[in-house]
Amino acid sequence: MPSLATNQELYFMSLALEEARKAKEMGEVPIGAVVVCQNQVIGRGHNLREQNQDATAHAEIIAIQQACQKISSWRLWECQLFVTIEPCMMCSGAIINSQIPEIYFGARDPKAGMVQSLYQLLSDQRLNHQVTIHEGLFGREASQIMQDFFREIRAQKKVAKKINKLVEILSEFEYY
Amino acid sequence: MPSLATNQELYFMSLALEEARKAKEMGEVPIGAVVVCQNQVIGRGHNLREQNQDATAHAEIIAIQQACQKISSWRLWECQLFVTIEPCMMCSGAIINSQIPEIYFGARDPKAGMVQSLYQLLSDQRLNHQVTIHEGLFGREASQIMQDFFREIRAQKKVAKKINKLVEILSEFEYY
Repeated sequence: MPSLATNQELYFMSLALEEARKAKEMGEVPIGAVVVCQNQVIGRGHNLREQNQDATAHAEIIAIQQACQKISSWRLWECQLFVTIEPCMMCSGAIINSQIPEIYFGARDPKAGMVQSLYQLLSDQRLNHQVTIHEGLFGREASQIMQDFFREIRAQKKVAKKINKLVEILSEFEYY
Repeated sequence: MPSLATNQELYFMSLALEEARKAKEMGEVPIGAVVVCQNQVIGRGHNLREQNQDATAHAEIIAIQQACQKISSWRLWECQLFVTIEPCMMCSGAIINSQIPEIYFGARDPKAGMVQSLYQLLSDQRLNHQVTIHEGLFGREASQIMQDFFREIRAQKKVAKKINKLVEILSEFEYY
């Protein structure tokens, strides 16, 4: 049974979606996360990989780092993590390392998701920590933000390709 | 075949061991790492989880973040990571995410190692990046630093237990 009431779950995941939209506006893969402790948001983050040129700057890592700083502890024992997309290997590891007992994610990532898709790393009984997993909250919305983002990226690439072709044709004229 | 000569491999792993010793001196689990790019150290770190009270402050994460910052890129394509102990889930993920092509680790971590011990995550062909793995360089030294650290911790706990017992006995006297 989740430790939060349904309206709280919806509220916190809506904040994670808000974070994902911030990432989208910045041209980042749109994933957002929040860490909640006793019904208070103590960490929030969105993907900043391109902006920071930092491979570790995923939404979950940023939110977890902020949460640790907020409560001055690396142990996030009374926390929930809300994230729009299924965590990757690095972020699943950060969840284990910070001993977060409960996570919510919106939509699966079939290519790199480590919670359900490629592995079920957060349920491995050999590790010294296991996590309760809630899946699908605002999943359609989380997935839609990603699809919109990648559609825009593809469209931009198409335009860039056409411009390059045009430049190539024009360069064949001597006066160009 | 490794991209570095043997003496270079030994030198860079000795720097990682140096980092591990710094962690030990601070009372941190003694693991150290360096990131090398074209024979230059561009990132180094040791475990700072307790000091920073940050669950993500592992040696590899710190070294990778520093390396990204140094070359202003999240892609560490021409780099090697040297780390004294087999990476955990989080750090294995950071290696994948930064697309480091080659890693060296000293000794295995049978409880949480994700490169050879519990999983072989860095060799998963379904992921968009695979890593060449070199294992065992200064393995005995890396392992010895860990053993010494945990022996000291156990000894300290024993002393603390004895002191507590003593305080308990003394508190039974009225004048105490």
